Amino acid sequence: MKKTMRAIFFDGAKLGYRSDYPPPEPQSGEATLRVLKAGLCRTDLEIIKGYMGFRGILGHEFVGLVEEAPDENWVGQRVVGEINLPCRRCSFCRRGLERHCPERRVLGIKDKDGALAEYLTLPLENLHLIPDSLSDDEAVFVEPLAAALRVLEQLAPYMEKTRENWRFCVLGDGKLGLLMAQVLKAEFPEVICVGRHPAKLALLAPRGIKTYLVEEEIETKFDVVVEATGRREGFSRALGLVRPEGIIFLKTTLHEEVDFNLSPVVVDEVKIIGSRCGPFSQAIKWLAEKRVNVVELIEAEYSLEEMKEAFDRASRPGALKVIFNILESSRRR
Amino acid sequence: MKKTMRAIFFDGAKLGYRSDYPPPEPQSGEATLRVLKAGLCRTDLEIIKGYMGFRGILGHEFVGLVEEAPDENWVGQRVVGEINLPCRRCSFCRRGLERHCPERRVLGIKDKDGALAEYLTLPLENLHLIPDSLSDDEAVFVEPLAAALRVLEQLAPYMEKTRENWRFCVLGDGKLGLLMAQVLKAEFPEVICVGRHPAKLALLAPRGIKTYLVEEEIETKFDVVVEATGRREGFSRALGLVRPEGIIFLKTTLHEEVDFNLSPVVVDEVKIIGSRCGPFSQAIKWLAEKRVNVVELIEAEYSLEEMKEAFDRASRPGALKVIFNILESSRRR
Repeated sequence: MKKTMRAIFFDGAKLGYRSDYPPPEPQSGEATLRVLKAGLCRTDLEIIKGYMGFRGILGHEFVGLVEEAPDENWVGQRVVGEINLPCRRCSFCRRGLERHCPERRVLGIKDKDGALAEYLTLPLENLHLIPDSLSDDEAVFVEPLAAALRVLEQLAPYMEKTRENWRFCVLGDGKLGLLMAQVLKAEFPEVICVGRHPAKLALLAPRGIKTYLVEEEIETKFDVVVEATGRREGFSRALGLVRPEGIIFLKTTLHEEVDFNLSPVVVDEVKIIGSRCGPFSQAIKWLAEKRVNVVELIEAEYSLEEMKEAFDRASRPGALKVIFNILESSRRR
Repeated sequence: MKKTMRAIFFDGAKLGYRSDYPPPEPQSGEATLRVLKAGLCRTDLEIIKGYMGFRGILGHEFVGLVEEAPDENWVGQRVVGEINLPCRRCSFCRRGLERHCPERRVLGIKDKDGALAEYLTLPLENLHLIPDSLSDDEAVFVEPLAAALRVLEQLAPYMEKTRENWRFCVLGDGKLGLLMAQVLKAEFPEVICVGRHPAKLALLAPRGIKTYLVEEEIETKFDVVVEATGRREGFSRALGLVRPEGIIFLKTTLHEEVDFNLSPVVVDEVKIIGSRCGPFSQAIKWLAEKRVNVVELIEAEYSLEEMKEAFDRASRPGALKVIFNILESSRRR
């Protein structure tokens, strides 16, 4: 392991790149990983506007090689890692709500340096092996695909009723919206996606997903609407599209307030369900079984040194997934 | 049936009382009811501020005697009535969502004259018999008690898990809040209620429900929070009290917008469930089994002529249920 490393960090005011960042020290039970590739996410773009008050190395979507570990069997394995580090002692953790531990640290999001660097550390129990059949590019999508699959987990209590007839609407054609639409279409016949970018929506058509531009009127009411627009107006659009007693899944986290009238939620008895991280092992299974196509969601690949270009590209309206190729680019040096 | 009747109505600008209101004409399939007693509800107070844009006779909580009916067996029976009149033809009605029919009329709330009058009409299928063991006063509470019981129906999909350990918090010590707390306490051991009026909260203490004043700090997080404050600040308080992956039931309908940050809903994966009308037959059963005490929730009784006093009394902060005694008061004339 090297004495210094390349890393992209946020200092609370601006984004920076350093080639002499101190590598992270593994805590008890932690493995040290060499990052192969890492993805940029909308949350990263919100963090550099102040969301979560995070300072440190960004990045929480990655695939890496275990370089050092408390258990030798892990060394050399290719892995992805769950991003929540619960305290495992508080009342939440004891009730099985580790992902919501109020003391938790979150890789690249809260009190824990992230994946836009040559090395990161994570507890062994956070790691998941990646089968050889998956490429590094595919593996980078485990975290966002898991977030999309979380909606299926959360739908389970409602699935006794007539799921075959249910109509689903995904709002947003960002990375998560496109993944969401694919995941739902794999399980349910009637899925539409509403977005702003014909080129991105066109990726869904071959899968039998009907697509609409935001300005188009949609008269149907949907049993389930997934709000993944990343925009403040997304919620009221979702309310307008959901049927009475239907479900809205909220995926958008915004660093601002939205105002709306709660009465329609009460009168129409709508259910609104916040939805965040999901099951990594399921996501790996779905990728291995090729149930979704993630590689076509990659927009561009950069080295860590190309930080500015990469963040600019990811910030463009309609940008798809921007990936950092970290080990490759270091080998080139 | 008389040629004119006494009635309290809203003309879109102000509340009025007339002794020469034309009685309602029963439509096909409808019974004509003589109203015995009717309750005032917070919704009525919102309607006279403009909520729902309703014009006509107010009132949707009542008990009455069937005076005329398409089926003679109903004549003379004492009944309460469900307040929604669906079209029974649209796609919602055909899917079992009659209560949410977009064309529906609602007694005293939307396009259908209500119960603050000597007569009202309702379809036979809306009527429920009241057993002799229930007083008129108790029967007036069937509609609001049903609304409270709706929360139990909506909890059903989540009830497989450890319901014994669940902690419930009711926000609001209005009529609905006090009913909600009683209903939950009948089913679950740990229930608290947060309100503004020590005298009203004191009604709950004998039932083993812990009570708090709004200004008191509450450190516990609750599995389920029922927001029944009727105030705009209720929702953010609910968000602060619910545990991650917990449920907030929204009961408050307000004629105004509320602004809040949706991110905590997403990050904590909170479920927000709008909740409105509920099962009348269950409510009658609960009242007959004395599972809740409603009579102690009555604040005062008035005749229709005492409209102004009655509405003033119901509008007072902390007012409990105000009831109109309609048949009695007409006999007195």
